Amino acid sequence: MASAQESDHLDPLKDLRSRFTLPDGLIYLDGNSLGVLPTGLGDRMSEVIERQWGERLVRGWNDAGWIDLSSHVAGKIAALVGTGANCVAVGDSTSINIFKVLSAALSLRPSRRVILSDKNNFPTDLYVADGLTRLIGQGYELKLATAETMTDALDDSVAAVLLTEVDYRTGERYDMKAMTRHIHDKGALAIWDLCHSAGAFPVHLDAAGADFAIGCGYKYLNGGPGAPAFLYVAQRHLEDITPALSGWMGHDAPFAFTTDYRPAEGIGRMKVGTPPILSLSALNIALDAFDGVDMSLLRRKSQELCDRFIFEVEHRCPELELVTPRDRARRGSQVSFRHPEGYAIMQALIANGVIGDFRAPDILRFGMTPLYLRHIDILAAAEILERVMQGRLWDREEYRARAKVT
Amino acid sequence: MASAQESDHLDPLKDLRSRFTLPDGLIYLDGNSLGVLPTGLGDRMSEVIERQWGERLVRGWNDAGWIDLSSHVAGKIAALVGTGANCVAVGDSTSINIFKVLSAALSLRPSRRVILSDKNNFPTDLYVADGLTRLIGQGYELKLATAETMTDALDDSVAAVLLTEVDYRTGERYDMKAMTRHIHDKGALAIWDLCHSAGAFPVHLDAAGADFAIGCGYKYLNGGPGAPAFLYVAQRHLEDITPALSGWMGHDAPFAFTTDYRPAEGIGRMKVGTPPILSLSALNIALDAFDGVDMSLLRRKSQELCDRFIFEVEHRCPELELVTPRDRARRGSQVSFRHPEGYAIMQALIANGVIGDFRAPDILRFGMTPLYLRHIDILAAAEILERVMQGRLWDREEYRARAKVT
Repeated sequence: MASAQESDHLDPLKDLRSRFTLPDGLIYLDGNSLGVLPTGLGDRMSEVIERQWGERLVRGWNDAGWIDLSSHVAGKIAALVGTGANCVAVGDSTSINIFKVLSAALSLRPSRRVILSDKNNFPTDLYVADGLTRLIGQGYELKLATAETMTDALDDSVAAVLLTEVDYRTGERYDMKAMTRHIHDKGALAIWDLCHSAGAFPVHLDAAGADFAIGCGYKYLNGGPGAPAFLYVAQRHLEDITPALSGWMGHDAPFAFTTDYRPAEGIGRMKVGTPPILSLSALNIALDAFDGVDMSLLRRKSQELCDRFIFEVEHRCPELELVTPRDRARRGSQVSFRHPEGYAIMQALIANGVIGDFRAPDILRFGMTPLYLRHIDILAAAEILERVMQGRLWDREEYRARAKVT
Repeated sequence: MASAQESDHLDPLKDLRSRFTLPDGLIYLDGNSLGVLPTGLGDRMSEVIERQWGERLVRGWNDAGWIDLSSHVAGKIAALVGTGANCVAVGDSTSINIFKVLSAALSLRPSRRVILSDKNNFPTDLYVADGLTRLIGQGYELKLATAETMTDALDDSVAAVLLTEVDYRTGERYDMKAMTRHIHDKGALAIWDLCHSAGAFPVHLDAAGADFAIGCGYKYLNGGPGAPAFLYVAQRHLEDITPALSGWMGHDAPFAFTTDYRPAEGIGRMKVGTPPILSLSALNIALDAFDGVDMSLLRRKSQELCDRFIFEVEHRCPELELVTPRDRARRGSQVSFRHPEGYAIMQALIANGVIGDFRAPDILRFGMTPLYLRHIDILAAAEILERVMQGRLWDREEYRARAKVT
């Protein structure tokens, strides 16, 4: 393995770091909880607030393009997840979008009553599925399996399988294409949660044959805290869905103010209420950081960063147990280790300027965001982790000096 | 009636106008579509973006109080609608919140299958109710009546009545307390849409005995385009509701990441996903414009502005037909007129610097927002409307000069 400095020097994506504004003296390995602030976003948001809202007022819906903003953002996200703008809707939270696609999926398989998911799925996926089946009643239910028992659980009672492509704790990645084929073989529909995928590596929803997907705007897409989420509906399903969450923005003619709901053509029907324009504008601006980025290079860098972190940490901290697969194909863009004192270790790391995440009961999670992380960040994080594990204090000034070397 | 200048001089709320930044040369009578920009909001949002997000990053959830922000905002809104923070949840769109409270109401009246609403209700209310009944099936249905036939339609099949307190077209106002009592007498639950009430005049949800309510953040609350909405659940119902939209932010322990959904205590369970912090922060900042405002004075000023506009327009433009009740008690904070050429008239008004709203087929709608409107604005708007009706051009400089007089 090349030295960290050498790898950074040769990194074809190294200039992308300047598209973000990172706080001094911090190694941020939590971009999979909240992405960092894109450079210039603050100024562009001032423009949205002072000029668009302040001066144009209600005319901003037309003049400033607010009415089309969610479709505009959808086009940018579509390019990152392997589909067209006509299959992506942006707005609401991930949880709400899960409800939308699950209810749509059930309506397409009326004779089947089971939603199948992974018991290790992100909890809100399970909570939303549970709430939906409780609301409908009539024998609808959520069943849980593990990656190992999923195949057995996939019988002809299953209407839809709801899976997160990358496990938020372990970083393990499902083979979306193979799993989707398997789900289809059993007559069910495949719903993919891309919260830890979109923006982290290339996703190919159309090519994988996915039926539905949802994803988050504030992790690898850097849209800001609680940024609007997105959903995907395969082209072949669009005209067969009448949304359960049927709001005026999804109406065929929202400003005709007619009494009867008539779904908009295509993906537009998946919109519901008035979108939060300020948060949506921030997401729109943030997505420009992906302009011209070769996603296959991004993936390669992410894998290199992960490999380096695994190598350095295993070498320095043998008491930490790797839980992320070593096989590049089987993981996303994070590295997780297990330790019984994981919570305390993460607190010490954070106190020493390395921001990662703890996930109960014992997982230390480190997000590798290749748009703005450098190999020297990864090396320094491993060194600091080593000192924390050894119970030694860490000299914050040392890292600051190191960061300035580059 | 005192002159406009005199009324402005005597207005006890006249200093509130400085809490907003209004574009020069514009008379804005559309605050019931989108409220104007509060003064200083841009700077405070820069702080949220650059300091909270940019520097604190994921730590902002604790350091900057994002995790409690929706509850904090709920407290401010609660004070405007006559209840406590423990009965209000802020987040998602109005449409999504309608779904939440409707599904909750149905669960409280399991033997009844009808949602009753007003056929003149804002369309998204009807669309959402329609989508919910379609999703549940089992004979659930939405029935529509008019204000006149509502009493007859309210039989023992009705689980919940969904009404907007102030009609978005006519400005007519339901008597919330009397209607709620009537609904309760029939064994049904009362759900009030406060989109054209909250922030426009004092609302007394608890005192009226309302069961549920929803409302908008971007009209009279001035939270910015698409600002998060709010909902209300009467204290007596809180522990009996298991939300149909059950997301992780409504879980009793969101960061325990348990597989099973367990609703948070009280109103917290009505939260769903991660809230859009930028839009929510703007709403939070905007609500400070209500600090120390006596809502009964606000109501009185709103009524005076409405009265003045009705008087001046009827005097000057006899061909416009008033559709808003003359009786102060029976209207909200808007004045609407009917004219077959309403669309063209509104376009001409807007071109001449008076922003109102057209609502099909023939309604000219003028929102009276007493926080920042002056009597001279109302008078000038009536004068311009008169000239538009007479087909005369209007000299924009004249109003600019007039505005500078004060």
